[in-house]
Amino acid sequence: MNFKILSKIKSPDDVKKLNNEELKELCAEIRSEIIETVSKNGGHLASNLGAVELTVALHRAFSSPDDAIIFDVGHQSYTHKLLTGRFDRFDTIRTEGGLSGFMRPSESKHDAVVSGHSSNSVSLAYGIYRAKRLKGEEGTAVAVIGDGALTGGMAFEGLNNSGRVRGNFIIVLNDNKMSISRNVGAISGAITKLRNRKRYHSFKFIVNKLLIQIPFVGKKLNSLAFRIKELLKSMVYRNNFFESLGFNYLGPVDGHNIKDMEALFKAAERYTRPSVVHVITAKGKGYSFAENSPKNYHGVSPFDVETGYSNKGTKNFSAVAGETLLKLAKENDKICAITAAMTEGTGLSEFASEYRNRFFDVGIAEQHAVGFASGLATGGMTPFFVVYSSFLQRGFDQIVHDCAIANVPVKFLIDRAGIVGEDGESHQGIFDVSYLSLIPNMNIYSPSFYSELENVITRVAKNDELCAVRYPRGCELDPLDADLSGDYSVLNDGKKTAVITYGRIFSNVYAATKNTDFTVIKLNKIYPISEELITKLSAFEKIVFFEEGIKSGGIGEHIASRLLEKDFKGKYILNAINDEFVPAASVSSSLKKYNFDIGSIKRILGVE
Amino acid sequence: MNFKILSKIKSPDDVKKLNNEELKELCAEIRSEIIETVSKNGGHLASNLGAVELTVALHRAFSSPDDAIIFDVGHQSYTHKLLTGRFDRFDTIRTEGGLSGFMRPSESKHDAVVSGHSSNSVSLAYGIYRAKRLKGEEGTAVAVIGDGALTGGMAFEGLNNSGRVRGNFIIVLNDNKMSISRNVGAISGAITKLRNRKRYHSFKFIVNKLLIQIPFVGKKLNSLAFRIKELLKSMVYRNNFFESLGFNYLGPVDGHNIKDMEALFKAAERYTRPSVVHVITAKGKGYSFAENSPKNYHGVSPFDVETGYSNKGTKNFSAVAGETLLKLAKENDKICAITAAMTEGTGLSEFASEYRNRFFDVGIAEQHAVGFASGLATGGMTPFFVVYSSFLQRGFDQIVHDCAIANVPVKFLIDRAGIVGEDGESHQGIFDVSYLSLIPNMNIYSPSFYSELENVITRVAKNDELCAVRYPRGCELDPLDADLSGDYSVLNDGKKTAVITYGRIFSNVYAATKNTDFTVIKLNKIYPISEELITKLSAFEKIVFFEEGIKSGGIGEHIASRLLEKDFKGKYILNAINDEFVPAASVSSSLKKYNFDIGSIKRILGVE
Repeated sequence: MNFKILSKIKSPDDVKKLNNEELKELCAEIRSEIIETVSKNGGHLASNLGAVELTVALHRAFSSPDDAIIFDVGHQSYTHKLLTGRFDRFDTIRTEGGLSGFMRPSESKHDAVVSGHSSNSVSLAYGIYRAKRLKGEEGTAVAVIGDGALTGGMAFEGLNNSGRVRGNFIIVLNDNKMSISRNVGAISGAITKLRNRKRYHSFKFIVNKLLIQIPFVGKKLNSLAFRIKELLKSMVYRNNFFESLGFNYLGPVDGHNIKDMEALFKAAERYTRPSVVHVITAKGKGYSFAENSPKNYHGVSPFDVETGYSNKGTKNFSAVAGETLLKLAKENDKICAITAAMTEGTGLSEFASEYRNRFFDVGIAEQHAVGFASGLATGGMTPFFVVYSSFLQRGFDQIVHDCAIANVPVKFLIDRAGIVGEDGESHQGIFDVSYLSLIPNMNIYSPSFYSELENVITRVAKNDELCAVRYPRGCELDPLDADLSGDYSVLNDGKKTAVITYGRIFSNVYAATKNTDFTVIKLNKIYPISEELITKLSAFEKIVFFEEGIKSGGIGEHIASRLLEKDFKGKYILNAINDEFVPAASVSSSLKKYNFDIGSIKRILGVE
Repeated sequence: MNFKILSKIKSPDDVKKLNNEELKELCAEIRSEIIETVSKNGGHLASNLGAVELTVALHRAFSSPDDAIIFDVGHQSYTHKLLTGRFDRFDTIRTEGGLSGFMRPSESKHDAVVSGHSSNSVSLAYGIYRAKRLKGEEGTAVAVIGDGALTGGMAFEGLNNSGRVRGNFIIVLNDNKMSISRNVGAISGAITKLRNRKRYHSFKFIVNKLLIQIPFVGKKLNSLAFRIKELLKSMVYRNNFFESLGFNYLGPVDGHNIKDMEALFKAAERYTRPSVVHVITAKGKGYSFAENSPKNYHGVSPFDVETGYSNKGTKNFSAVAGETLLKLAKENDKICAITAAMTEGTGLSEFASEYRNRFFDVGIAEQHAVGFASGLATGGMTPFFVVYSSFLQRGFDQIVHDCAIANVPVKFLIDRAGIVGEDGESHQGIFDVSYLSLIPNMNIYSPSFYSELENVITRVAKNDELCAVRYPRGCELDPLDADLSGDYSVLNDGKKTAVITYGRIFSNVYAATKNTDFTVIKLNKIYPISEELITKLSAFEKIVFFEEGIKSGGIGEHIASRLLEKDFKGKYILNAINDEFVPAASVSSSLKKYNFDIGSIKRILGVE
């Protein structure tokens, strides 16, 4: 396609030079480019299409990188990337070695911070803002936060801390009337109220006028009347959520009108106190399929631009988890499901509509989700918190404090465990085994197949364990027909070498060891590690452990330590992800890179 | 002392039977008992003295345990303990085998949940509330949350999720006008505004009357006037932070007037929507020393009741950390200090007054603190976040996502690392080494002495490392005069057995190995572990590792795994805290229990 304006934008300065007509054309070109690229590479569509004019207005009103602009969540930064010198490489987004689908400082000076997880923008922007002032530098910092991200406690902590600073710190509320799926919770109601009060400014003016005209209120006839006036005035002027936290509130403004937004952004910059500029955008704007069904076009697989058709929707671990919970909920009215704004992604849509009473979308609020689950369990229910591995990191203290100390039987279903692919560093589920296995009273399962996942969920629904069941993004590899009900399964009966693993890559290990005399041990319940297993392993001359996760604190290290304490004198080879973040790449490419594919496993084992 | 009322209170039912005079006497007796006991055992004084009448009113208005009452933070639950059958054992509070200083379900059916960390009450109470309704049970759940705890993001996530439920879920805001030290942030301002509007109810009434009387507003003369009226009304009725989140707001009410509180609590119970009851209490009420200086009587060591004098105040690791930062800040204007409402506890008081510009108390908001630190570092400052080990668990995801991925040089000073003593399970600093060493790019130091702590802080202030410097609560044991600037120090030159350790207990290990031919290796920078160290260790026949922390994922396991992978054939003994929470006891008693005292170390090493 011929992008006659977009192709000439080398930096935000070029955006500032465009006239109205050119801006309109630019936005159209940006939309084409985003739709085209996402249809090929997959990625976040609806949120980016909604933020085109907003981003253009930001880059006209402010001067990146002197003004730091931080998008929250970073997946809405595609237009930002296109306007900051990355148009030429945009077709590489979310591919190995290409642009990240989120903000990455290593990629551009215009990406001030890493922005993959939600709700961090206010804290980080405020830190940058204070640093600028301490160093006597010019410029401001702008946190562009979605209404969904605002449900995260970290965002509130940031608002609370920054609301009373003296200075022009700026928050842009990108209100698209939903977060990832339906935005729930009270803050959403508060924002809706603001949104519906479009005549806010003129109203304020009128009310003020009236107050002066009403004789016995306007003239200080007595102190009561005066106080009433003051009361009314303060209520008119400081009457919303943000103002109660100390912010100057500007808006709402049409998020597809560049000039109006520019004017408000510049106004916010002139204040000597922090502002919230409320911008209303339409998710999916400009692409009818996405506009009509934004939740289906939130994070998407490659699709056909003309028809909107995606190949997605084949069976996968998420779907199996959702179906299993649904089935259990039918039989057992104690079963509850909790999601942190990920109903679709975690396969819970049907549960949500079928068992509304026992389904809880708590917003992007993992800390609360864990605490709430603990409360439900304390009250006698059987709560399953279904959550992506990397997002559960936010609930770490709550797992320790609110679940593990009193050993409350909360069940975690951890989706996207292990390598996740194109989302890259911030979304890899490679830490959960380490950060969960360090917690006393925690039990961890890592099923390799759909049927095993179903069986494990069914089993833990009936027991009193505090536990985590973790499974990867996507599909099972080669399912195995074997009894997997024990803590581990021994396949083959070779004598000298044991190959041990768990989770998705078991299939590769099993395939690689076909027709060898290696004993293959598949861990089903991966933690705690039984004494029996250690004793069994001690008899081998050589043990090779394959672990799709971070090495430090993983099961491979736990077992190594136990073996050494048991005077194991054999050879121990531990193949795991060693002390690094895993960058974006296809899952299969990453599996290969870290030696989890059949070929690499064979090589390490010296097979063939 | 003769407690003629208190001694007869066996359950909350007994509290309900008392008349006004008896209630007054009961409160006086409770205060005596608390002051007396805390003066002997140490504990939380000011917050408990402030909450005496509040707790009595709660137990009169509600029926625990059918109504779950959750105190946030749990350290304000002393009166609750006294009224729920624990008066006889109250003198054992915060002692080994005695009552916990926080809420513990294992201790009483009236303690619904574990409550040691702040800001979890809304989530847990709401979970219990929903479970009750799902099971068709009567009763409600009440979260009693301090104004300090309200600055935590988890509390906000809970408010956001519970604000629109249909039902009588109740939040009691215990507003003592400060959290642990001075309450900072916008929410504090919002609450102050509510507090100062004592005539709120009558004002509302008057305004409403007036609106009807004003002719052209009261009579629907035209739609504009009508809309103005509606607007004004909605602003008068829904004008505060809590109402904007969907709560019914009741108060403020005097937190030392039992009858008034009882009435409001019962009113809240009758609503069919959730309420926030705003209660104003005086921290330290009834004990002049604590009333005049509540921050000094927050968490206290044993003291003299008559004089208020405490022996506390000798030099300790916290003080050294604070002094070192102060010194560095003098020389280097990039140095910043951040605390999450723990200015005094972390030794930062002087820094706070000396360098106000570069000192940030962000409230009880660890997630934000880490993100904000990352922003400051991104902006070119050198931020030190000084925080208790167990509280930093709340910032785990932010360390991974906002610091480690982009390798931003944030410095964590981790106070209360290791065993902390009488605060018990929820406050032990035994997990940080495991949850930090699993994060790529993280560097960890664990100095054993004051001088070493000072040197390490001074060194990392100048480098570009993302790092954590962890040190215990209290005092150094035996300082050693040796070069500790390398990653590890080798003391002695025995050949066959290496004894390896780090942190506070090094002194015990060193003392235990005096006049033996063991090589003692003290880790200074404990992570990452250098290849050189592993090679050196490989040469020994036997290695004994002492680690004052959880075994799973600790340095002892990391080293074991590395040794085994290096074909180490010797003996390896790892003495750490194995898969359990450490209950309340004196530090020295716990050190002994886990074999970290000189005697136990000698026994394990077979010395003498």
